[in-house]
Amino acid sequence: MRFCDLIDKKKRGEALDHEELSAAMMGFLDGSVPDYQMSALLMAIFFNGMTDTEAADLTMITAKSGDMLDLSAFGNKSVDKHSTGGVGDKTTLVVAPIVASLGGIVAKMSGRGLGHTGGTVDKLEAIPGYKVTLQEDEFISIAKKEGVSVIASSSDLAPLDKKLYALRDVTSTVDSIPLIVASIMGKKLAAGSKNIVLDVKYGSGAFMKTKEDAEILAEKMVSIGKKCDKNIRAVITDMDIPLGCMVGNFSEVEEAYSILCGNESSDVHDLREVCLVLASNMLCLCLDIPLDEARSLAQNAITSGLARDKFRSWISSQGADLDAFDELISSYKEKTTPVDIYSDKDGFIDKMDTERIGLAALALGGGRLNKDSVIDPFACIEVYKKTGDEIRQGELIARLRSSDPSLLENAKNIYISAISISNIKISKGKVIYKTLT
Amino acid sequence: MRFCDLIDKKKRGEALDHEELSAAMMGFLDGSVPDYQMSALLMAIFFNGMTDTEAADLTMITAKSGDMLDLSAFGNKSVDKHSTGGVGDKTTLVVAPIVASLGGIVAKMSGRGLGHTGGTVDKLEAIPGYKVTLQEDEFISIAKKEGVSVIASSSDLAPLDKKLYALRDVTSTVDSIPLIVASIMGKKLAAGSKNIVLDVKYGSGAFMKTKEDAEILAEKMVSIGKKCDKNIRAVITDMDIPLGCMVGNFSEVEEAYSILCGNESSDVHDLREVCLVLASNMLCLCLDIPLDEARSLAQNAITSGLARDKFRSWISSQGADLDAFDELISSYKEKTTPVDIYSDKDGFIDKMDTERIGLAALALGGGRLNKDSVIDPFACIEVYKKTGDEIRQGELIARLRSSDPSLLENAKNIYISAISISNIKISKGKVIYKTLT
Repeated sequence: MRFCDLIDKKKRGEALDHEELSAAMMGFLDGSVPDYQMSALLMAIFFNGMTDTEAADLTMITAKSGDMLDLSAFGNKSVDKHSTGGVGDKTTLVVAPIVASLGGIVAKMSGRGLGHTGGTVDKLEAIPGYKVTLQEDEFISIAKKEGVSVIASSSDLAPLDKKLYALRDVTSTVDSIPLIVASIMGKKLAAGSKNIVLDVKYGSGAFMKTKEDAEILAEKMVSIGKKCDKNIRAVITDMDIPLGCMVGNFSEVEEAYSILCGNESSDVHDLREVCLVLASNMLCLCLDIPLDEARSLAQNAITSGLARDKFRSWISSQGADLDAFDELISSYKEKTTPVDIYSDKDGFIDKMDTERIGLAALALGGGRLNKDSVIDPFACIEVYKKTGDEIRQGELIARLRSSDPSLLENAKNIYISAISISNIKISKGKVIYKTLT
Repeated sequence: MRFCDLIDKKKRGEALDHEELSAAMMGFLDGSVPDYQMSALLMAIFFNGMTDTEAADLTMITAKSGDMLDLSAFGNKSVDKHSTGGVGDKTTLVVAPIVASLGGIVAKMSGRGLGHTGGTVDKLEAIPGYKVTLQEDEFISIAKKEGVSVIASSSDLAPLDKKLYALRDVTSTVDSIPLIVASIMGKKLAAGSKNIVLDVKYGSGAFMKTKEDAEILAEKMVSIGKKCDKNIRAVITDMDIPLGCMVGNFSEVEEAYSILCGNESSDVHDLREVCLVLASNMLCLCLDIPLDEARSLAQNAITSGLARDKFRSWISSQGADLDAFDELISSYKEKTTPVDIYSDKDGFIDKMDTERIGLAALALGGGRLNKDSVIDPFACIEVYKKTGDEIRQGELIARLRSSDPSLLENAKNIYISAISISNIKISKGKVIYKTLT
């Protein structure tokens, strides 16, 4: 069958079978199917969707397109977590040590940030000495010793996804649910954990703008994970507001660490709650215990200092200099120039464009415009007021920090444009919408 | 604006303005917009269509992408005809000399055949000595002297269409009405005639399978032609059955010539009628006379021998050897090996898959599988029975001819598979469905 006939078939709304999809995708990966035919197929998929069988086939084809990590040595204990991306999302840094301190194995590959969303690997790299690239045996051995190791995604894992995503990114075919599902789940399957908890975010800072779309995406991913013999759950969480109060790489490490150190202030209630729910669900799966038991174990791991100690021994095993880390926790803000944003009126914050807040962090130097951008690890936003908060004229809304003072003005304007103040009091929404099991 | 944003805009169902379309298309033509982005845009256009304004903009951008032929020396007398393509369609060879013999100027560029459809240039090239490639001044001077000159389309005219079509062909984005409209009308506008008659075909041998789709296409083209200050009409004609009784290059020249020589047999009634309707509409526009007057002039041009003489002096001016032509008319069949197809039962022809009949002619060597194929000018199909005809067991349905006897068996099987015989008598449909003015 000519590739053009496959495009035509999908264009007419018919489903491609496994053999057809496999020939198309492997041909694209080896270069025999040109980009211009694949982009036409991707656009036809955007419009006509994929059946569940097609999406599952594409997921398996993606997973098997490169190396598949073998975590079978960890039996049923291995557990992965995946977030669909957001602003201020530092949950991996909190949940991984909690779960590891209680016997789960978090041998995890994470991504870098791009555009308005941050990436766990960029945050970890802000820790002095932490190595985000390890040989596979070193990675496995740290996971064995500590119960947790987090490294940057290997280019040998799911190379089809890498090539497809690069094409989708420049052809406006990113926002297709079956393609997103196959991309995420393909990588998760290749990454080898038996148990998976997905954090599917919705709202102004998320890829999915509504709860409903997030739920559709979550359902599809859970269904495909189960078909592929994984224990899998999805937690649907709010990303209409930044998570926690800090946005920016090292500042997020610091805030995550504060949660592990017992920070229970109301400012970080949302972050703490998402972390506890994600950690409980991970423990539930990998230890095969009820959810309420998992939740109290997770809470106790924080209270007892077990999780904080696990965080320290993990990052130390992975190369971090703990003294330098402790010193930086108290001094990193001094490495930057701040600019403050004050309210020009009385009222309530009634809306935050969280994607734009991510773009403000990017403008401060804290993110990546393209793959070659160099990141300022200390650039950050301290968020003082969030949706639902009352505010007085002259009160501090946010403080922006950058190592490069010339970036402050532009970032400040972006941040201001992301905040809406009116005299209507909005009640704060729930941070957890739903868990799909 | 990034090209990706244009794709996204179209994908969301919004219209692109003239500046956006122009930047996209000119960028594609000069290579700064890569194929993989254009194919994604084309697929989005396939799904979301184009507004009339967008289609008109794309038409003008296409027309202006290269040279534009200046036929202003012919005032309002220049008249072009375009067929959307079919099987056995030799009307240009009949109507051009009729119109020229009555004072119209047919300075026309025609295409080559590809796949199942024939091309006027391939037919003319089957005439000994006829030159399908001329310098522009020579072309104009023959048109001045004879009132008619037909050459192969120049690559300098509408180069955007050439590049776009090559991409559409391999990305399953050919069958988009606005893209077809812009392609055809862009070329017609660049070709310079003041008056245009479109022959929009429907049925099993045409690109448009239904009358309704053909009418939509015809309406769009007429509307755009008028916007661009052309006198334009569209005749919607039947291509559910091959036109006339001959399919194959020289055989079609011979059949067209026979019409000009007064052949009024019922076998070629359909062909003669389409030619008279097209010629009348062309005369109507370029001589500014009523349709019924144009029709009797056209008929008289045949009866009087005027049109036949015009045909001879035209092809002679364009290099044809008239003695060799006359000799070939009576002898060309001898250059081939025939194979006959007989009916295996009594009944009626109730359906012809005319696209497949075109493919049978291709299999005989009479067509072009790709741009580099060499054509057998004498390969042909003599059609003896058409839809609606009664047939007896053992009666001749068709005779296939090829210069290469090894091609006959396969072509015969294709032809047989294109014919359906049952005991239901189908009444013959009208060959002209409608004229849009």
